[in-house]
Parts: sequence; C-alpha cells; structure tokens
Amino acid sequence: MSKGLHVNRIEALTDGVFAIAMTILVLSLELPKGDGSVASRVWTLWPKLASYVVSFVMLGVLWIGHHYQLNHMRRTNRPLIWINLAFLLSITFLPFNAAVLGSTYEDPGAVAIYAGTILLSGVTLLAHWRYACRRPELMVPDLDPAVVRGLEVRIVAGLVLSALSIALAFVDTRASLIVLLLLPVGYFARTPIDERVAPRVEKT
Amino acid sequence: MSKGLHVNRIEALTDGVFAIAMTILVLSLELPKGDGSVASRVWTLWPKLASYVVSFVMLGVLWIGHHYQLNHMRRTNRPLIWINLAFLLSITFLPFNAAVLGSTYEDPGAVAIYAGTILLSGVTLLAHWRYACRRPELMVPDLDPAVVRGLEVRIVAGLVLSALSIALAFVDTRASLIVLLLLPVGYFARTPIDERVAPRVEKT
Amino acid sequence: MSKGLHVNRIEALTDGVFAIAMTILVLSLELPKGDGSVASRVWTLWPKLASYVVSFVMLGVLWIGHHYQLNHMRRTNRPLIWINLAFLLSITFLPFNAAVLGSTYEDPGAVAIYAGTILLSGVTLLAHWRYACRRPELMVPDLDPAVVRGLEVRIVAGLVLSALSIALAFVDTRASLIVLLLLPVGYFARTPIDERVAPRVEKT
Amino acid sequence: MSKGLHVNRIEALTDGVFAIAMTILVLSLELPKGDGSVASRVWTLWPKLASYVVSFVMLGVLWIGHHYQLNHMRRTNRPLIWINLAFLLSITFLPFNAAVLGSTYEDPGAVAIYAGTILLSGVTLLAHWRYACRRPELMVPDLDPAVVRGLEVRIVAGLVLSALSIALAFVDTRASLIVLLLLPVGYFARTPIDERVAPRVEKT
Repeated sequence: MSKGLHVNRIEALTDGVFAIAMTILVLSLELPKGDGSVASRVWTLWPKLASYVVSFVMLGVLWIGHHYQLNHMRRTNRPLIWINLAFLLSITFLPFNAAVLGSTYEDPGAVAIYAGTILLSGVTLLAHWRYACRRPELMVPDLDPAVVRGLEVRIVAGLVLSALSIALAFVDTRASLIVLLLLPVGYFARTPIDERVAPRVEKT
Repeated sequence: MSKGLHVNRIEALTDGVFAIAMTILVLSLELPKGDGSVASRVWTLWPKLASYVVSFVMLGVLWIGHHYQLNHMRRTNRPLIWINLAFLLSITFLPFNAAVLGSTYEDPGAVAIYAGTILLSGVTLLAHWRYACRRPELMVPDLDPAVVRGLEVRIVAGLVLSALSIALAFVDTRASLIVLLLLPVGYFARTPIDERVAPRVEKT
Repeated sequence: MSKGLHVNRIEALTDGVFAIAMTILVLSLELPKGDGSVASRVWTLWPKLASYVVSFVMLGVLWIGHHYQLNHMRRTNRPLIWINLAFLLSITFLPFNAAVLGSTYEDPGAVAIYAGTILLSGVTLLAHWRYACRRPELMVPDLDPAVVRGLEVRIVAGLVLSALSIALAFVDTRASLIVLLLLPVGYFARTPIDERVAPRVEKT
Repeated sequence: MSKGLHVNRIEALTDGVFAIAMTILVLSLELPKGDGSVASRVWTLWPKLASYVVSFVMLGVLWIGHHYQLNHMRRTNRPLIWINLAFLLSITFLPFNAAVLGSTYEDPGAVAIYAGTILLSGVTLLAHWRYACRRPELMVPDLDPAVVRGLEVRIVAGLVLSALSIALAFVDTRASLIVLLLLPVGYFARTPIDERVAPRVEKT
C-alpha cells in the first residue's frame, strides 16, 4: 500500500470552492432601481451578465482541468495540497474580478487583472500536474504518457492566451477580451486524449 | 472497464451549487427598518418570502430530476460535463431571479425572466438526459426503457408549463405565476417510474 | 437488491446546506463605523454574536439529528426527499432569523419567529424519521427498536421546548430565550442510545 | 465491527465549511468608487487583499491539520462531533475577523481578536486530536505513536505563536502580525511525520 493521503478530501474541498465561486458570481447582479420596466432594467446589467457568464465558463474550464488531473491521481501529499490551495486561492479571487470587470470592462487594468487571475489559475494548475506526474507513487498505475502530455499542452495553450490577453489589455481592451473568450473554446470539444481517459481504479 | 470519467465529482459539484443556491436565496430577505413590531415588518416581506419558498421548491424539483438521471449513469464525458455546467449556470441564475421576482412580482418582465430561467434549466436537463441515454457506455447496464421515457416525459411536462407561463406573463402575471406553481405539483407524488428506480450498481 | 435511491446525494446536499447556513451566519456581523477602538466596537455587536453562536449550536443539534437518522437508512424515495427538502428549507431560513434576532432580541415577534423556525425544523426532522422507520425497505437490516424510539424521544423533547419558547415569547422574551437555550443541552452528552449506534453497513 | 459513526459526514461538513469560509473571504473586497484607474483603486485595497491571502493560508493550515487527523480516524461519536463543531465555529468566525483586520490592521484589538480566533481554532483542533487518540476504538488500527505526537507538536507550536501574537498586539501590532505570519511557515514543508502517513484503511 503506497504512502500519502487520499485525494478524496482535496476533491471535496475543491468542488466546494468551485461550487461557491460559481454561485456567488450572481451576488454581483442587483436590479437597478428605477421607473423603467424590469426587462429594461435587467438589460442595463448586460456587462455584468456577460462577465458572470464568461466567468462561469472560465471556472468550468478550470474545474474540468482539475477533474482530469485528479482522475489520474491516487494520492496527494503536503506540498501538492499547498499547490492545490494556491490554485483555489486564485479561484476564490475570480468572483471579485468578475464583479470589477462587469462594472469597468473598458478599463485596461480591470481586463489585465482579470486575465492575470486566469493566468495564475493556469500556472498553479500546471504546477499541480507537473509535480504529481514526476512522482509515480501519487499516480494511478500505468499512467498513459499521452495523457500526461495532453493535459499539459491544454494548460499551456490557455496560459499563452491569457498572457496575450494581459498584454493586449493595455493596447485595446476589446481585443484583449476577445482573446480571453477564445480560451474556453479549445476545451469544449472532445479530443483524442478524452478517449484515453479511464476512471481511476479503486483507491486502496 | 468502460472509458470516461466517474460521475462522482459532477455529483459533488452539482450538489454544492444546489446547496448554495438554495441557501443564498435567504440573502434577499432583509428586515425593513421601521417603528412597527418585528412581526409586522416581517409580514411586509411576504412577496419575497413567497418567492424564496417557491424558488426553493423549484430548485428541489430540478435537483431531484438531476438525481434521478445520475442514478442511472456510470460515466460522464467532456460534452456531457459542459451540458451539466450549462444546467448549473441556469441554477446559479435563479437566486437573482428570485430576488427580482420578490420585489417586482407584478411586472411582466420579472415573471417572464423567472419562468424563462426555469425553462432554460429544463431544456439543459433534458439535453443532459438525451445525450446520456444515446450512449450506452455511459449508462448502467440493463437500463429500463420505461425509466428513459418516464424521466423525459416529466421534464417535457415542465417545459410546457414554463413556456406557457412565459407567454401568460405578458397577458396576466397572476395567471402566469399560477401556472408556474402547478409545475412542482407533478413532481411530488410517487409514480410507477419510481418503483423501477434501483440504486446504481457499484461504479468500477 | 432493494429498490429506491441511494442516500449519499441527500447527505451531500444536506451537508452542503448546513455548511453554508453555518458559515453565512457570520455575514450578519459587520463592524460598526465609529471612533472607538475596534474592541469596543466589536463589543457592541454582542447580541449579534450571541445570536450567531446560538444559531450555530442549533444548526449543530439539527445536523447531528439528521446524521443519526441517515446512519440507519440505506435508501430514500421521492416523498422522503421532499420531507428532507422541507427540513432544509427551514434550515436555510435560520440565518435570516438569526440576523433578525441579533438586532431585535427584545421583540416578542422576533423571538417567536426564531423559535418557530426551530420548531419547524424539528417537526420536519421527526416526519423524516417516522416516514422512514415505517418502511423497512429503506432502513438498515436489524434496526434496533431502541434507536427508533430513542431518536424520536430526543426530537419530541426539542419540540416541546421550542413550543414552550414560542408561547413564552409573548410573556417574557428573556424567559423564552432561556428555554430555547436549554434545548441543545440535552444533545451534548452521550446517552445509552449512542452506545447502540453502529455504522451503516456497506450500501449495495 | 466497532461502534460509532462513520467519519465521512463530518468530513463533508468540515470541507463544506472550509470551502465557504475560504470563498466568502472575497466578499470583503469591493472596488472603491472613484475617478482613478481600476488598477490604482484595486491598489488601495492592499490591506484587505493581504488579510484575504493571509486568512486563506491560515484556513489552509487548519484544514490540512484536520485532514491529517481524520486520516487516522475511523469513527466519531457525539462528544467528538461537538468538539469538531466548536472547531468549525471558530472557522466560520474567521471571515468576519479577516474583514475587520483588513480595514483596521493597526488597531491592537483587531489584531488580538484575529490572533485569538486562530488560537481558538488551534485549541479545539488539539482537543479533537487528544480526545480521539485516547479512544483506540475511534482510530485506525496500528496507529503510529510518532504520528500521534507529531501532529500534537505541530498544533502546540501554532498555539504558542498565536498566543505570542495576542500579547504582542498590545505592544506593537506590526510585530504581532509578523509573528502570526510565521505560523503557517512550519506547515509548508514535508517532515518525517509526512512519510509515516498512510491512507486510512477501508472503513467498515
């Protein structure tokens, strides 16, 4: 029996943080007071609604990335938990960024900080995967090298896009946001990697 | 051993989002300041209280629908996770709608947007079920066709009611809300389908 | 293999709702602005702090009650899920009541509504237990009748105290609150029932 | 088969409370209104941002401590659940303290109350471990005495630092905060104890 801690609690904590971050995004929405109809007042919220939907999708991308990683891990240890916590710290920061972006989406700083948080999430997620993959005692037996490489490539692609988005923010916030919106696209479709993913064997 | 991801984490994320959405409904309640007794001031909150209870029940209906689906599934995959996330996005939007409805329940737009969110939840839940049922590798072995059809019929009935509620909102908000209140009724009683539901076999 | 749904998801939803209700109690605390020291300004929050601690303990009592019940159950079904949801509805209502009580603890209505919510939680928890105990197919085999009776007696004792607290609220709010504070005491100590509680056998 | 309750639900409740406490820390951040750029307005939030990051790390330390304890436990009982709830009560109190500290970090009372909450968390966590270790029927078989002692030493070290921080708060808040920041450092690195941690055997 290998040493280390089960991954089930890190899964529970992570799923909890994501569930809450996804749900409290909505707390930044508040119906403006006014004489107009509710529909027209909701309509004025469109930048906040867009920020909320985009942020939800970003959280979805990151959650799926974490899910795929843990699917191939059997154990965790103290340093890996801290890397995971750094990842979660960036996740908890996103609702604040989403609220800021929703009200100031034309400000370069708002866009750059938002993209920077996505970048930070990606960096910590990549560190999590690299640390784990180098320690076979933490991973499932017979880990497919194509999965190791495939998950890494996906994250690096996201890092490049978010870094590009940060740089563009100071040139043209609209272009920066468009680049950021491209990020999730690559995570929607099934790829050959998905065909190689098998459920984790029973943890013992 | 079939390919794909375990459903346990999608269950955890979903249960987390529902738990939070159900609980933060109460954040829209705030005791009005004033000289009157607390009881009389709480009483003035009745539209918000009603919206809170109705929204809680709606979330309950949708959670049970999801629970019944997952009970017959063994695996998930990337597209199905995204369908599930679209479902969760509509769930996280409900507390905002509930707060809007609680303060402007006579406005056609408020009622229509509320019913529209319920409709969106139903559509994504139906998509989730249809996608899964067409892929036997994701489902439990020996899936009962009566369960496949039964769960679908239930959702479609809810879609019809919420679409009717949206249309009625622009004619008579009271009639629209009554139709919406009929929606959960069909989900309270046990039906023959319930007798056929067996716990998912051990996932391996 | 008996029919019905696994209890694991109702546990996850319930634990999520309790975790959130316990944690958002703290959102009713806000440091008053002012010139005084922080310590003196925190001190002025004492009725809110007391309400927060008492409500946390009440949620603990109710969570433990639910935990003991589910420990002896193997399956759930549609009506039982709805009874559980009614229980959770009363739980989500408690943070609002706690905030009201914290700011108006001398108002009979505030005290009575608070105690009434506790009463409602107890009634739904009792209904949950009674419904389940009458259906052996939902319970663990060899359910100990002393456990059936013991858990019921505990809840009924709490119902009597919270009903008494409601009645007293209109006579003397202080006496009413003291009665309410007696409620958790009976749930702190180990009793002979605890010795008979065995972990649920593996659910299959 | 030993008596007592499974630990899985106390794990779920605890993970939920931590996930929420970690995530609602961000609710104390709100972009100040003003004419300046978003970046400069975010910059003015630095004491709140620092308090948020430090509090997140503190919650991480405490969560890991709880995780290591539960890893060696197979059962819980009523008194132990209450000790765990007292621990969770202190955890839910931290977001309030973090918000207070973020806006008044130069006030001795704010620093002392913050450090006092950390102290309370440590005391209840230590009580949890001591209570459990004295009851072999709650623990995994063949519990390593070095683990028993090692986890205890770690907590006691944290208690000493947080007590020192409280005392220093009334002399020099800056020195007090520095001592508090030393607390997590000892929890980052792997120690010989970590090598002895083995996953909990299957609970039956």
